[in-house]
Parts: sequence; structure tokens; C-alpha cells
Amino acid sequence: METLVEITFLGTGTSIGVPVIGCDCAVCTSDDPKNQRLRSSIHVRTPEVSLIVDTGPDFRQQCLRAGIRELDAVLFTHAHSDHIMGFDDLRRFTVREEEEIAIYATRECLDRLHAAFTYVFDGENRYRGYLKAAAHVIRGPFRVGDLEVTPLPVIHGKVETIGFLFSREGERLFAYIPDAKELHEESKSLLAGIDLLILDGLQPEPHWTHLSSGEAVALAQELAAGTTWLTHFSCRVDYRILGPTLPANVHLAWDGLRLTCGT
Amino acid sequence: METLVEITFLGTGTSIGVPVIGCDCAVCTSDDPKNQRLRSSIHVRTPEVSLIVDTGPDFRQQCLRAGIRELDAVLFTHAHSDHIMGFDDLRRFTVREEEEIAIYATRECLDRLHAAFTYVFDGENRYRGYLKAAAHVIRGPFRVGDLEVTPLPVIHGKVETIGFLFSREGERLFAYIPDAKELHEESKSLLAGIDLLILDGLQPEPHWTHLSSGEAVALAQELAAGTTWLTHFSCRVDYRILGPTLPANVHLAWDGLRLTCGT
Repeated sequence: METLVEITFLGTGTSIGVPVIGCDCAVCTSDDPKNQRLRSSIHVRTPEVSLIVDTGPDFRQQCLRAGIRELDAVLFTHAHSDHIMGFDDLRRFTVREEEEIAIYATRECLDRLHAAFTYVFDGENRYRGYLKAAAHVIRGPFRVGDLEVTPLPVIHGKVETIGFLFSREGERLFAYIPDAKELHEESKSLLAGIDLLILDGLQPEPHWTHLSSGEAVALAQELAAGTTWLTHFSCRVDYRILGPTLPANVHLAWDGLRLTCGT
Repeated sequence: METLVEITFLGTGTSIGVPVIGCDCAVCTSDDPKNQRLRSSIHVRTPEVSLIVDTGPDFRQQCLRAGIRELDAVLFTHAHSDHIMGFDDLRRFTVREEEEIAIYATRECLDRLHAAFTYVFDGENRYRGYLKAAAHVIRGPFRVGDLEVTPLPVIHGKVETIGFLFSREGERLFAYIPDAKELHEESKSLLAGIDLLILDGLQPEPHWTHLSSGEAVALAQELAAGTTWLTHFSCRVDYRILGPTLPANVHLAWDGLRLTCGT
């Protein structure tokens, strides 16, 4: 079983999380832990590599909760605040002076990281305990440990945003697309017939930068995905109410959910 | 009792919080909630105003934990990541299009906020649900509701940093200085004989940018402060061990501690 790939949902919430500050709706006041959501992120672990996708403001709390103590790489989908503002807490993974963590992001996303965390990139903070990042610009498929990662361009508001397809030895394992309104045709053909798809499904109501749960179901069906897990939920998603209405192969993810794939 | 000023410690931790990711020390593995620390911040509430000092990455979690639902202003001590990266979560306090939140910071700190959160300041995101900030440059004493606030320049590493003295109708209420290695003479004279002082006291061991607990005690004594609460602790501070060794009028703060002052 050593070759299995483990995916942990560190957060399944939208930009403001759930509960939402100052909101008294049934979901924000729910005791059900599946209705409580930190900002969206996943941890992926294989026998060779430990990586996360995105470092939102909850990143420290997510590491503590999931017991993450080793991290080789971070992949960024885009530079919205809910996906990058915990970046400095990566410093715990580069404590020694010679340690660096590999960062993969588009040019636009790296530019925004650079603007927000200049001290990480200006070459002056190479000390023990500080964050040392080795930045890689995503221009096409790349390799992290035993994983092949293919960027999936998607449409999500004004910011250039990508999802990721993870493969190993040519076998597609799963795709993660937490923020999207539409997929480009290029991304759709890479995903056709995929076994495991993790997809933005913000809420039942339509939204101009996110797939609604209904749109996400339709997209999963168009792609003929085997199993789909929706994520990046607002407080309009009550796990107990929306969950039972979905097709048998589409599910709502929750914070702490662990999936395995690969053989 | 309506004129009392209430101070809530939203966090009493240093930049990486306690527990520290990957640390197995006695404090990081302690069950005592007084040894568990989010990034340093306080909430101040008077009959006229609700304000916080700093918005670190834990800001959303801190609002939920302390039940903060109204906020008129944010004061920033400096632009280190542990004090600003939760800034976007202020959006919940400016939901309506006409709402704005007042931000007070030095020119340098505002420039860094601007670089990290350009979309807040570029005038393009005035929509419902987005963060709308009215930025004020701190150049000297200013007024927030019924409070008079005096910036206290301090020495803390390379970044320009300030603490704050809060007064009302000419009466000094308390001062908050979470990050300092030394105070300028100007700040010392403003604080001489103050009743209530909240002061950086990182850890028993010396540090080049923070007061150690011993240095903080000596400074409190030099200032002849009435009562001093130390804050901004690393995991070298075990509440149960360090606390009992301090002078009778110096205490260790903890997350959730509430103090009142004023008459």
C-alpha cells in the first residue's frame, strides 16, 4: 500500500470561511463540524513528496490540525488573499539556513507574492527561522517528487487562475480546481473521463466568479468524471441539506476529509 | 459602569504562534489554554467605539472567538506579516457599499498594506462584501471615538514600529506596545507613572528585536508603571513556570484575557 497517494482537505471554505463573521444563518451557527470551513487548501502526500496547494490565512492552523510536519513544495492556484496570505507561516518548514521550500506559481501569482512578501524574495532574509523560497514559474507541466503536475487554466474573475492535474507514471490520479467559473477547452480535454475530480461548487445560487453546485454537477457529468468532490463552499451550503440532493457520484467535501488514490 | 473601557487580548503569541508547527516542547504540547497563543492583537471597546490593534493572519478566528461583530477602526503597530496578513478579513465589517473602516498606520506601514492588498486601495473594489478602507496616516496624536490615541515610537528591528497610548478626556488609560526592543526617550516620558501598561515580553532569553521578560520587567519598573501585562510570547514562555517568578505587579497575559480601565 506504500504507493498510495493521500489527499487531505485542509479547508473547504470560500474567501471568508464558515462561520462567517457576524452571520447568524443556520450554517454559520451549526454545530456540525462539516459545516465549519477554513479557507480552501489540500495536502497531498505520496511515498516521495509532501505538498500543499495554496497557503491561505488559516495555513498555520491547518498544519497544526492535520499534523503536517514536513513539506517539500507549495503549488498556488492564484493570488487572491484567501489563497496566499498565510505564506509567511511556511517559515517553519525552512528553519535551517540551508533549507528552501519549492514554490510553483504563474508569473502573475509570483509577482503578487513578491509584492506582499518582498522580504522573502529580496535575498536578505536567509537566516535560520526565516522563510526561504525557491520560486518556479509555471509555464507547463512540471514534476514534484514522483508526481507529474499539469496546470489547468480556468476562468475565475479577473485574476489568472489555474487548477492542477496530478499524474504519476502517466496515470492520471486526480485534479484539483478550487476556484473556477468555467474551464477552458484545453483543460476539459485533459480531464475527460478522469476518475477523481475535486471541483469548485460554491453554493446552490449562481455566482459570477464561481461554479454553483448545479453548474459543477453539470460540468462533472460533461467530463464523465468517475467521482467528484465539491469544495470552496460559502455558508449557503448546508452539508446536511445539499449533500443528499446530489447525484450518487458527486459529494460535498469537508475540512479534514482524507481520500486516497493511485495503486 | 457604562464609561468603562474593555480590553480583550485576541492573541498573545509571537510571529509563529504557539503551538509552533513541528515543535514538541513542553509548552507547544501543553493542554493549558494559557499556553496556546494566536498572533498578538487586542480589541478595545468603549461606550463610543470598537477598535482593534493589528490584523494578523488569525484575525478571522479571533473575531469569531471573541464575538466581535462591530468594528469602527483598526490601528496598526507595524507591517510585519504577523500583524497585517489578516487584513482582508476586515471585509465583513464593510459589507454594505457605503461602509468604510478607518485604518490608522504610519506612512511606511500603509505603503506595505498597499503593496500587499492593492485591490483594497486602488478604488476599484467598492462593491458590497468587499473591504473598503479609509486610510489615515499617523503623524501624531489622533482621536477615535471618545479615545485620544498617541503613537509611541519604539525600536523593533528594521521596520518602523509604534505602540499606542490610549487616553480619554486627558486621563491616560493604558498603553499597548507589543513589539519593541527599546523605547525612545520621548515614549518613556509619555508613559512615566502610567497605571496600566501592556508590553512585549517575548521570552526569558534575550532577543535582538524584542524585550525579554526580564528586560520588560526592568522597563516597567523604570517607568514606575502601576500594573504591567506582558504579551507577544514565544513557546519559551510556560505560563505556569514563568508567571510565578514575576514581581507582584507584572503579569503574563493570555488569549481571551479581558481587562477594564477608566472610570
